[in-house]
Amino acid sequence: MPKISAKDQEALDYHEFPKPGKLSVESTKSILNQKDLSLAYTPGVAIPCLEIEKNPQDAYRYTSKGNLVGVITNGTAVLGLGNIEALASKPVMEGKCVLFKSFSGLDCFDIEVDTQSVDRFCSVVMAISPTFGGINLEDIKAPECFEIERRLVEELDIPVMHDDQHGTAVISSAGIINACEVTRRKIEDLKIVVVGAGAAAISCARLYRLLGVREIYMLDSKGVIHNGRSDLNDYKREFCASGYMTHAEIFACADVVVGLSRPGTFSIEDVMSMAPEPIIFTLANPTPEIFPQEILEAREDAIVATGRSDFDNQVNNVLGFPFIFRGAMDVRAKKINNEMKLAAAHALAELARKKVPKEICELYGKDIKFGRDYIIPKPFDKRLIVEISSAVAQAAIDSGSSQIKNFDIEAYKKELSEILK
Amino acid sequence: MPKISAKDQEALDYHEFPKPGKLSVESTKSILNQKDLSLAYTPGVAIPCLEIEKNPQDAYRYTSKGNLVGVITNGTAVLGLGNIEALASKPVMEGKCVLFKSFSGLDCFDIEVDTQSVDRFCSVVMAISPTFGGINLEDIKAPECFEIERRLVEELDIPVMHDDQHGTAVISSAGIINACEVTRRKIEDLKIVVVGAGAAAISCARLYRLLGVREIYMLDSKGVIHNGRSDLNDYKREFCASGYMTHAEIFACADVVVGLSRPGTFSIEDVMSMAPEPIIFTLANPTPEIFPQEILEAREDAIVATGRSDFDNQVNNVLGFPFIFRGAMDVRAKKINNEMKLAAAHALAELARKKVPKEICELYGKDIKFGRDYIIPKPFDKRLIVEISSAVAQAAIDSGSSQIKNFDIEAYKKELSEILK
Repeated sequence: MPKISAKDQEALDYHEFPKPGKLSVESTKSILNQKDLSLAYTPGVAIPCLEIEKNPQDAYRYTSKGNLVGVITNGTAVLGLGNIEALASKPVMEGKCVLFKSFSGLDCFDIEVDTQSVDRFCSVVMAISPTFGGINLEDIKAPECFEIERRLVEELDIPVMHDDQHGTAVISSAGIINACEVTRRKIEDLKIVVVGAGAAAISCARLYRLLGVREIYMLDSKGVIHNGRSDLNDYKREFCASGYMTHAEIFACADVVVGLSRPGTFSIEDVMSMAPEPIIFTLANPTPEIFPQEILEAREDAIVATGRSDFDNQVNNVLGFPFIFRGAMDVRAKKINNEMKLAAAHALAELARKKVPKEICELYGKDIKFGRDYIIPKPFDKRLIVEISSAVAQAAIDSGSSQIKNFDIEAYKKELSEILK
Repeated sequence: MPKISAKDQEALDYHEFPKPGKLSVESTKSILNQKDLSLAYTPGVAIPCLEIEKNPQDAYRYTSKGNLVGVITNGTAVLGLGNIEALASKPVMEGKCVLFKSFSGLDCFDIEVDTQSVDRFCSVVMAISPTFGGINLEDIKAPECFEIERRLVEELDIPVMHDDQHGTAVISSAGIINACEVTRRKIEDLKIVVVGAGAAAISCARLYRLLGVREIYMLDSKGVIHNGRSDLNDYKREFCASGYMTHAEIFACADVVVGLSRPGTFSIEDVMSMAPEPIIFTLANPTPEIFPQEILEAREDAIVATGRSDFDNQVNNVLGFPFIFRGAMDVRAKKINNEMKLAAAHALAELARKKVPKEICELYGKDIKFGRDYIIPKPFDKRLIVEISSAVAQAAIDSGSSQIKNFDIEAYKKELSEILK
């Protein structure tokens, strides 16, 4: 048996002790005597049931539905581990639930669905959807994830989002907005290269277009995606270059590269050929396409972001999903639409431009100020829940996705600031 | 709009305030800084995933699965409310989760499945089963519930039980065992009438047979079930009288009647015709078939039990399911088999024959002693978890259902006594 490293053993111990796993379910009402029993269960429980039967929206008044997210996977694309199937993905799903709770106060059930079929997966999620106020799809492989999300968003009228796609899209968009601010560029003028053509890459490219970017190129494992290729699925086809182009051509004078692939898919030579003050996001995890030091040695004018917490400018999904769902669910949005995702990206960008509170600087042991090394907010910034969730809620209202009339956004901001206390 | 009674309003308020519903999901591990994040989520979480991929049983070491019950319904037979469908049943399912937690420390996810189809329901539950260490089916109508439970028990190798069937069967069996003790009868000699032929009634009659009862008659809404009738499903057919019999005939000299029907399905005249010291369980809820006072006025030699907490001898399912699942899951039983249900019934009966702790007497404000008025333990008796769960665990081991080798039952009893502290 191969020896387990101390670091791996620490991770195993964390998961096993003092008791297995990371979640517990608690009663929010006391059950100390017969009276409590008769309210929580029979006969008292019959009354809210009948109210909900008459008016389904009352489920939000009398049950935990409105604060409950289903974190649902089939285990086909788990972290960097690939298709490890339903059961083995449970530690990740529980981890996601923990993040939701810690960052937004939302309760989550992790649900591992034992199927690789798109039809069956959708059928199962639709069947159990009355349980939840929102559904976060997680770690489902491309291209199936696109079809799964499309169908569930269409069929259900609670927020449904595949975080692996949109989380990265929203956070990296915030980073691009601010990198443009720092380098005095206009979004519309950017030439962006997306390296990788999986779920996150497609979704990032789509959101960049909505941000206003006009020139986007994409690379998959076979090279530049262009309309001379016959091996493209519909999703990749959205980002075809309109004629044969070489790898070198698409990098030449590019303003931005977003790596969502693996180490080695682009090189320092590519970086060297980019425009002045290049914006370089090497988001492969845990090993970035190129390490930041290496980039900055070659191009000291670059702005660099990674997916890792040990470098500046971390594109971390935890900056998005907790607050996007919080805002969407609190206004009972029927969908998480593009307006809401863009609002989240802009709110994140705006937050990073504000003065950083002292406690955040202390937590990171340094003075943090808007600029090349800080274009994206830090995960433990307590202002996130207020700023991002309220922006998403406002966008839901403005775009007609909200189902609550006369929502008081100022009162809501106050409530948000209380959630994590 | 009809005015809501003060009592109903109290139930609604209990469910709505201070926040909607009865459940929250908490992290059992702390998430205060980047280090915690890296253990609970990426990159640390990858290690337990890979261990579980290699050895699926490791899900019990590194995730919450082993302590997690799915409380799953389609809402087709909710309490006395009938088919109110998935969403409206959520308050009951959350209540069940609260009971599981309070009485046995098990964590539960309530899952409301939006389908009335047996095939689809089974397919959905099987698909999401990797999530759970056990599955409690709840409030599913007969006869579908039999087929659903049979299939899921067969297909899955985690404990699956439809509590509405077996809970009442186990608790009422304990009551019958002790009523025989009090009246010096032998189980084998009993003549039992079961009034009602729904899920609980069928399951009760089946378990009474396994206890050793030889003479059982059953009544449905059309009268005595006998082999001259052509309108019987397979489940009712199991309890056919072998020839035409009248209502009066089956009650004449009966030792036991178990009412699982509704008020008025049998009468004081029926009770008058029963054997000396009749054992009368009027379990219809909230209004029993006949109220205890009325029975005792007519037959002061009767032993009476109801489903209500405000009378003596309450047949309350909470005496069963939390401890049956606790014991079954802790030894990783593949099934909850008949041996385990009988063990639970006998352990309950035995506990009621022991001296009652002072705090229970104080809680009920009276001296409680084994006898006609106390043949079934009280729900808040802290000895239940130890005695019933360990008996179920032992039966699982003895019957070959347990998947744990060399289980230390004495150490387990100690652990059980710590769970609710």
